Order: sequence, then C-alpha cells, then structure tokens
Amino acid sequence: MKSFRKELVIHYPRRRGYLNLTPQVEAALAESGIREGLLLCNAMHITASVFINDDEAGLHSDFEEFLERLAPELPHEQYHHNGFEDNADAHLKRQIMGRGVVVAVTDGKLDFGPWEQIFYGEFDGLRNKRVLIKIIGD
Amino acid sequence: MKSFRKELVIHYPRRRGYLNLTPQVEAALAESGIREGLLLCNAMHITASVFINDDEAGLHSDFEEFLERLAPELPHEQYHHNGFEDNADAHLKRQIMGRGVVVAVTDGKLDFGPWEQIFYGEFDGLRNKRVLIKIIGD
Amino acid sequence: MKSFRKELVIHYPRRRGYLNLTPQVEAALAESGIREGLLLCNAMHITASVFINDDEAGLHSDFEEFLERLAPELPHEQYHHNGFEDNADAHLKRQIMGRGVVVAVTDGKLDFGPWEQIFYGEFDGLRNKRVLIKIIGD
Repeated sequence: MKSFRKELVIHYPRRRGYLNLTPQVEAALAESGIREGLLLCNAMHITASVFINDDEAGLHSDFEEFLERLAPELPHEQYHHNGFEDNADAHLKRQIMGRGVVVAVTDGKLDFGPWEQIFYGEFDGLRNKRVLIKIIGD
Repeated sequence: MKSFRKELVIHYPRRRGYLNLTPQVEAALAESGIREGLLLCNAMHITASVFINDDEAGLHSDFEEFLERLAPELPHEQYHHNGFEDNADAHLKRQIMGRGVVVAVTDGKLDFGPWEQIFYGEFDGLRNKRVLIKIIGD
Repeated sequence: MKSFRKELVIHYPRRRGYLNLTPQVEAALAESGIREGLLLCNAMHITASVFINDDEAGLHSDFEEFLERLAPELPHEQYHHNGFEDNADAHLKRQIMGRGVVVAVTDGKLDFGPWEQIFYGEFDGLRNKRVLIKIIGD
C-alpha cells in the first residue's frame, strides 16, 4: 500500500466564500502515482469545509443565503461561543457543509460523476488556513 | 491491497424520495471478496445523497418535511441558481443529507450497528442517476 | 495492509450532549500500530453523531440551540416517526451533524489541524450506545 500527503494553504480574502480545489487535488493525485484507492480531502480548520457540489456562481450565492438563514453571523452576541470570539456561526455553517470528502481513485483519476467538483468553503477567512489531502492505495 | 468498483443506476419515479441500497451494497461487497477494509458509497450526482439512517417510512416523511422547511423547492425563483435550472433546492438538501458514506468492512460484512441501513436520497429525480461503490482492503 | 477495529461503549447520562473522544481514538490508533493510513470513526446508532469541531463548552451550547431550532424535539407528535418512538428529532439532528469522520493517519498520529477534536454527539441518550473505530493502512 502506498500513501501520499499534501497540504494546501488558502488565504481567502473575505470572511466567507468558495474556492474550486479540483485542479489542485487532481495535481496531488497525479503526483502521488496512486492508481486505485481512496482520497481524503478535508479542512484542517473547524470554521471551514471541503465538500462536493456544482461550480456555479448562482448556487454559491444560494449557499450563502441558506447558511445565513440557518446560522446567521449577526448579532455576534446571540452565541455562547462568542465571548472572546466572533465566529460561532462559522463553526455551525461548517457542520452543515461538512468537514471533508472521501473520493474513489480509479485508473489514476478522481472517480467523479459528470458535475462533481471539490470546493473549499470558507466561513471565517482573512487568514491562512490549510487543507489536507491524503491518498492511500496502490 | 485489493480494490473493487461498481456503479448502481437509479431512476427514481418522483422528484424526491428514498431507496434502501443496503442489499445492493452487500451484494457488491460479497462480489469483491474483500474481507477487511473500507467501503465508500456515494451519489455521483450533486442533487442526490447517500446516507445511513433508519428504514422507517414515517421517518422518511419527516425527512421530506424537514428538508422542505430548511430548503424549500418553491418558489423556484427564490434561488440564484434557478435561471435555467429549477433544482437549487436539491443542491441544498443534498448538503444537509451528505454526499456519501464510508463504512468499515469486517469479516467480509458491512460493520453496522443494529439499525444502520444505507439510503439513496433523491432530490431531483425522474431521470437516470448513478451511485458509486468503491471498496479497498484485503 | 493492516486493519484494526475497536468499539467504544458510551452511556450518556442525558438525552443530548457532547463527549470528546479524541483520547480514546488516539489510544486505539497507538494500539493498532498503524503509521500511515485512514481511520474511520462512526456512531453505530442512528440517533448519534461523530464529528470534528472545537472543544469549547459555549460552542456546544450553541450546537444545542442550533439543532433545537432546526429540528426541535417537542412536540413529539409533530413527527410521523413518533408513533411508538419519541426520537424523530434525534434522527434529524444526526443528519446535520453527520454519522462519522474519516481522519488521515500520518507518522502514527491523527493528522489534525490545530483545533480539531473528535466528538460524540448524543441526541437520544440514557442508554448504552457504541462507536466504531476502524483503521486501515501500514
């Protein structure tokens, strides 16, 4: 069994938004040389997500409105966590969107359906954060 | 390390609903001959989910009402994604329910608790969709 | 490829709450002897979750309020599932928080960011429940 590990560093220029990581994940998979196995891609921070959905800007606006409806940022003082912090909403939004994804690796490629793309979801940006890619297989 | 891959094709006859995939996943595991490892089962489409919960029709009605409350289908024009599409709600519902599951394989079986069953959740049906099963192990 | 399996038994003394499982998962990983691979940790019951977030009591109070807003326990009779049961809300809360997590194993350690901790989320407690740890790798 082979294993491969890579970190991506992300600095998102606003508090919230989405980045398509698929090209970077594909590059890591190619670098690994693994042809058959499983690939884990996860946010290493608990106010961010890695998830799979559509690369469509309108949908990302819908995610923003949906998450703000379910776990609004403001007022900050509505949350117990926000004594010294202001990011409780980001911890909640991350639970809805998920920490990460496991993707099948087949014939050296991400084994995806027609529209699947891997996204980083930032809910408390404006600072460096990391994404982990771990691949195991042969 | 062995690996095994199988696709299931699903055509759900309504826009939304749930299908128990457990027998098909168990059959794929038996076919693989893998006794110890991890099994990934995921929707290959971004308006559907694979998740683990109870095989109980009342609960599935509760899922429908819960998801319609958090991300209602109508009116379609409430969503930015719905310029040429009408399925933004399905992309949101899928985020709550998840893309897929990873299940332990022990002694050649799905290593499940007493009530765990694998479900396909369709949120934009009436057309062919695929589910991926990938198993790695020995 | 090596594989390792362990069950944790949990008896949470209230209907809902959170337990930090990280020390027990780290102990299982050390016991396994696996240095590179993937670790799955999941609830074996469908009214509980295993997820990764912050070890901060204020945030856990925020989770409680958030989940009660999205899927309130009471009145029990609002749910179709609650004919003979009273825990439909727990099945829904578990979908938001997730069934389990997959964690990279690197150099014999959980490959975590600075604040990641593994939690058990109980939504229908007061009885014995199990958590599964499965590790594969070398």
